[in-house]
Formats: sequence, structure tokens, C-alpha cells
Amino acid sequence: MSRVRARQVISIDGYAAGPRQSLEHPFGEGGLRLPQWQLQTDRPGRENDAQVLAESVENVGAYVMGRNMFGPVRGPWSSWDGEWRGWWGEEPPYHAPVFVLTHHEREPLEMDGGTTFHFVTDGLLAALALARDAAATADVCVAGGVSTIRQALSAGVLDELTLHVVPLVLGEGERTFEGLAGLELEPDRVLASPTVTHLRYRFP
Amino acid sequence: MSRVRARQVISIDGYAAGPRQSLEHPFGEGGLRLPQWQLQTDRPGRENDAQVLAESVENVGAYVMGRNMFGPVRGPWSSWDGEWRGWWGEEPPYHAPVFVLTHHEREPLEMDGGTTFHFVTDGLLAALALARDAAATADVCVAGGVSTIRQALSAGVLDELTLHVVPLVLGEGERTFEGLAGLELEPDRVLASPTVTHLRYRFP
Repeated sequence: MSRVRARQVISIDGYAAGPRQSLEHPFGEGGLRLPQWQLQTDRPGRENDAQVLAESVENVGAYVMGRNMFGPVRGPWSSWDGEWRGWWGEEPPYHAPVFVLTHHEREPLEMDGGTTFHFVTDGLLAALALARDAAATADVCVAGGVSTIRQALSAGVLDELTLHVVPLVLGEGERTFEGLAGLELEPDRVLASPTVTHLRYRFP
Repeated sequence: MSRVRARQVISIDGYAAGPRQSLEHPFGEGGLRLPQWQLQTDRPGRENDAQVLAESVENVGAYVMGRNMFGPVRGPWSSWDGEWRGWWGEEPPYHAPVFVLTHHEREPLEMDGGTTFHFVTDGLLAALALARDAAATADVCVAGGVSTIRQALSAGVLDELTLHVVPLVLGEGERTFEGLAGLELEPDRVLASPTVTHLRYRFP
């Protein structure tokens, strides 16, 4: 049974990114510390982090991604000097179709290693429908960023959300749960290491 | 070795209380859901919750508490109609000296079951010193509310903080980590149940 999963790294005070995302600050100012837990997970004591990271790509047949996660380009793609091809170089770590939400049409972008970026101008639900088709019986992952996961939470389309809680107070930035008062989740599983705590939730 | 511990229930979006605390809303508006995890912990599947709750009072020799946690009285104690004796009736659940932060002097208030409320007008550090003396080799617990725990975090006086994360988006209220950008914690232990997730941190 195909499921829709999302995961997000957040600071202990609930920020998934710092403020003022830009080419120099892909995670916003001060936010670079957030994704660092994904490095060096082969070190002793970090077995749970390695497991969670491995699971995050297991059985994922397609991704949905917001424009801000794909890159710093705002407005028409042609406004960028050259061709923006994502943050990840020529072989992105997705190895599957990735449906990027945008207001500006663009031809699909085929990368090395099986990743193709498809640009969807009809909104989250349309992108999810395309991703479900592409994934067939595998899962769909809503990869981020913050506002896309917030939209998915608001629309009630997620089956599972994993929060990677980094033990740092960020102080400002973008909050995962902003504007979602009243939303309830069901604790499903907790895995922890000295570096980060992984809280997995389902939805009632 | 005596340690200073604190614990706080927070919503998944980081609120430890709803807004506008009052006599009718001791946890602020919408906040009553937060402490409810402490009820019915004898039910199946809630063994971890029962354990965490039992530990929270083990080896605690004295408490420090903010004025807002003690009650809804603002300004001089005489401004209250009658004598405010805490939220907990004649036998509060502390069974130990409790040092209440206030700007207004008041004689100690001896309750049943070993709880005495002492009123301290010299601030958090003075209250902590008194509590350490009273606790001797036992621990001191900073019981809350939100702004008192925030002060303790800011002053760097805590050895241990436990967050009881309730899987509900509260949306507004008082944030535990407001104004504490840059603070780092060390994950220490995680215990979970289908109701709530208990994250225990130490300080580097």
C-alpha cells in the first residue's frame, strides 16, 4: 500500500530553517547546523541515525518538493543567470522522479543516477497525484521545504511525519507547525542518538 | 551530588502554555490538554509515562516555582479577594519546601503533607540558593512555569531538562525557548508512549 511520508529536521524550538534563505544560506541564516546530523552516521553510537537515514529513502518511488527546496531562484526560471539544476550537482541523491512545485513552467530536467525533476504548476495536490502515479506501489516522500510540508500537513495528505529534533535553539526562522493550530498527531516510534532525536508520527 | 532539574510539558510546536493565563485557564487558553498526559498512567501501554512521572518527584528535596505557576494573583497578595493558597488544595503534591518567586513579600504558608510555600523577592538565583540549602544532598526541581524555566535556562543553572512533548499543535501561547537562541543541549534519554514523548537533556 503506497503511503505519503515526510520528514523534516527541526531545532528544539521548532524551526526547520533559519531566516532569509539564499544561495549562500540554503537552510537560511544560522540553519546549516540543522542538516549536519546526516553526516558521519557511521561513527560509534550513531547506529540509530544511520538506520533512520537509510529508511528515509527505502521504498520511496517519487518525491514532491517545494521550489525553495529545489533552489534559490525566485520568479521565472529565466531570471536566473544560467540554468539552475538543483543544489545537488549532476547526480542528486533522489534516484527517482522529483515533482517540483513552481508557478513557472519548465521542461523536465533529467539528471544522472535516475533523478528527473518535473516542474508542476498546478499545486501540491496535482504534484502528489503525479508522484503517486510515478511511485506505483512504492511510497511518495514530501521532501520539503518547510512551507511544502506545512501545506501537506494542512491538506491532511500525510500518512507519516518524522521529525529529526536537533538539540539547538535556533531562535528565528521558519516553523513547521505555523498556522496549524489544532492538528493532532499520533506518536509512532522514537529513535535517538547523542546527536539527534527522531520522532515518527502517524495521523489519526 | 545535588542537581538542579526541570521538566516541562510542551506542545509539538513548542508551547508550554496557552495564552492569557487566568483563574479559569491555569494553563492558558487551550492549554489544559498539555498536563493531561499525567492522568491515567496506570493504563496498559503507559508504563513509560508512569515511570517518568514517578521519577519526577524522586529525590527532590525542594522546589522553585514562578509566581504564575503558584497562582493567578498579579500584584500585591492583598489584591486577591481572600487568601490565595495555590492551585492544589490543602495538600499540594510537593511534600517539600517550595520557593515561590514574587515581587511581593509574604509570610511562609505551611500546607498539609509537608509542603511549605516560601516567598522569595530576591530573584531566581536567591531562590535556588535557598532551595539548595533546604534540599541538602537531594535535588532541586525548577517546577515552572514557562518564564521561570526560561530564566533558569538563560542563567545556565540547570543540570537536566525533561520535555514532555504532547503531539498536538497549540498554535499560540508561551514558548519555552523564546529568547534563548544559541543554547545547546545534550540528548540524554528518550522514553515514549502512544500519548506523549519524554525527551531528557543535559547541558554541556
